[in-house]
Amino acid sequence: MKFSIAQTDGSARAGVIVTARGEIATPVFMPVGTQGSVKAVEQRELEEIRAQVILGNAYHLYLRPGTQTIEKAGGLHRFIGWPKPILTDSGGYQVFSLSALRRIDEEGVRFRSHIDGSDHQFTPEGVIDIERALGSDIMMVLDECAPFPCDEEYARRSNELTIRWAGRARSRMEQTSPQYGMDQFLFGIVQGSTYGSIRERSALALSGMEFDGYAIGGLSVGEPEETMYSMTALCTGILPAGRPRYLMGVGTPKNMLEAIARGVDMFDCVLPTRNGRNAVLFTRRGKLNMRNAAHAGDFGPVDPECACYGCRNFSRAYLRHLFKAGEILALQLASVHNLTFYVWLLSRAREEILKGTFASWKDTTVARLSAREADTIT
Amino acid sequence: MKFSIAQTDGSARAGVIVTARGEIATPVFMPVGTQGSVKAVEQRELEEIRAQVILGNAYHLYLRPGTQTIEKAGGLHRFIGWPKPILTDSGGYQVFSLSALRRIDEEGVRFRSHIDGSDHQFTPEGVIDIERALGSDIMMVLDECAPFPCDEEYARRSNELTIRWAGRARSRMEQTSPQYGMDQFLFGIVQGSTYGSIRERSALALSGMEFDGYAIGGLSVGEPEETMYSMTALCTGILPAGRPRYLMGVGTPKNMLEAIARGVDMFDCVLPTRNGRNAVLFTRRGKLNMRNAAHAGDFGPVDPECACYGCRNFSRAYLRHLFKAGEILALQLASVHNLTFYVWLLSRAREEILKGTFASWKDTTVARLSAREADTIT
Repeated sequence: MKFSIAQTDGSARAGVIVTARGEIATPVFMPVGTQGSVKAVEQRELEEIRAQVILGNAYHLYLRPGTQTIEKAGGLHRFIGWPKPILTDSGGYQVFSLSALRRIDEEGVRFRSHIDGSDHQFTPEGVIDIERALGSDIMMVLDECAPFPCDEEYARRSNELTIRWAGRARSRMEQTSPQYGMDQFLFGIVQGSTYGSIRERSALALSGMEFDGYAIGGLSVGEPEETMYSMTALCTGILPAGRPRYLMGVGTPKNMLEAIARGVDMFDCVLPTRNGRNAVLFTRRGKLNMRNAAHAGDFGPVDPECACYGCRNFSRAYLRHLFKAGEILALQLASVHNLTFYVWLLSRAREEILKGTFASWKDTTVARLSAREADTIT
Repeated sequence: MKFSIAQTDGSARAGVIVTARGEIATPVFMPVGTQGSVKAVEQRELEEIRAQVILGNAYHLYLRPGTQTIEKAGGLHRFIGWPKPILTDSGGYQVFSLSALRRIDEEGVRFRSHIDGSDHQFTPEGVIDIERALGSDIMMVLDECAPFPCDEEYARRSNELTIRWAGRARSRMEQTSPQYGMDQFLFGIVQGSTYGSIRERSALALSGMEFDGYAIGGLSVGEPEETMYSMTALCTGILPAGRPRYLMGVGTPKNMLEAIARGVDMFDCVLPTRNGRNAVLFTRRGKLNMRNAAHAGDFGPVDPECACYGCRNFSRAYLRHLFKAGEILALQLASVHNLTFYVWLLSRAREEILKGTFASWKDTTVARLSAREADTIT
């Protein structure tokens, strides 16, 4: 994997990841398309808002529609009609959060499908095989995402297992080839809960395995924000500078900017689409709850500086009406808007890094974004 | 209102309605945007599929967001961001089908909102005032849509009331002006249930009132298909040839083609969007239920001859997956597809009328569309 850093600004980095399906300018936000669709958003809309890479989830896609169906379609890109890069999460997190009766042992994890209760096993090797069949541009290793809170002994043992699994995934990757003639890359995942020494051990061990990139997992699972930031900084301080770093499942606009300041390059989160479906809209002045009566007579756009389809064409009053009336269009417009905001925010962050003004811009922006949150009912 | 007939073919007509917001080539299908949104479809998508005119509903919009809000927005077109023609149904049908505790008298109808139980009254004059405030290009008079079945005496008395109401609406229209500087037209509505003599009386009386166009209401409410066709033919035989005719709430592709053969120019129906949301897709070879397992491994489009976004980019297998996975994108793609089919079907009908080959094309097409319906589980 080619990853070049165009500019650093403190610990923040502006880079470019080159994949077989195109370049990804970092810092980057990756919209989440768990089941092969970013909820309520059309693929052409993702292109329109300049999403550079989207997520799929191996756990979900393996269970439904099934790996075979996607192989027959010619891979995930073809199946879902998305020609740009895709990153697939291994589904480790989903096995632990969604499925019933999971049982972890050295070999892997046995679980029951949350859809039909059927029995399945995920192993580090099996997940690589699934991701090869999906044909994602960036594959994630199978890991155990420890819950929060989690006692130190459990965190340590879980992390050692995750390290051994990472090694097996790395080997399997070496032994196999892409099925669709397009290079695939593999990221390791740092775990270790909120224990600095375990995170350190994890980051060091994975760094030695020469992954194409490194994810920081197991954060944003309930721990205090400051802990998330300090754990992130600890990891990025150890991980090789020349490889992209991905903070999984994070987060709010503030979370992302603070993590960029600590050397993170990639983010994914369901927040923009889930919040959108719940009528919470991100703007340059903070969040708005579109169900609030205050918007009923407001004929201006959600965010006058936003270039999304909704902000160009519709008013807050109309969007509020759509939410109150239960119209699906509300979910569509709000999801596209929030994703536009997230993509805009990180591309703006990149500009500031290139200019060498990231830190001060970040502080001003975090303050402005947070100002409204306090007085808006969400 | 300017309505010109370019060609007739038997009783079928190819015409053009000229409104202040553009021309409408007939026969035309009008997508239903009851609450100011065609469900799961973006306004730019409606333009993309060449929808010429959409429906709004005075009952729904009066209750939510309220006439005042739409007036403040500068009218319905501005409020919903749709610059082309809008036809507003009076909401008579909705008062009778949705609201509780309705009470009809000579003056109008009192009802309780289906949203919050509040008390309201609709009169023929009041509904014109609402439609003036909405600024729709084509307004419908308030009518009583008799239920099916309905005894002859009730149908007769109801129809006489509807005729008197039509006269009052016509007068109110004369006494008032458009609020937004754009001409508005008014259609009368023929009622009379399934009684030929009552329909005849209705069509004759309304014809004398010189409406801009004429709707045929109270059909497709449960009566046999043949009755719908014979009642339609009876009405179009009486209504003035030089005015557009609109068969309200109809219907299936077959229903529309048979009605065109009997002199109808305009249609609206929730079927394409509602069926779409229920995974039933219209194609040139009949209907498909996208949830059927048969589509799981079918990587061809829903309809290879269809030019919609979904058919150009996605497979039946993907669409089936989206429905099975509960993804909102399924509703979006299916709705756009079905509307594309409806718009295409009527524009194709128009071409056949212009060529003078409508009757034979209609018979072949109805047979082809119906062939599949029988063996598809919907």
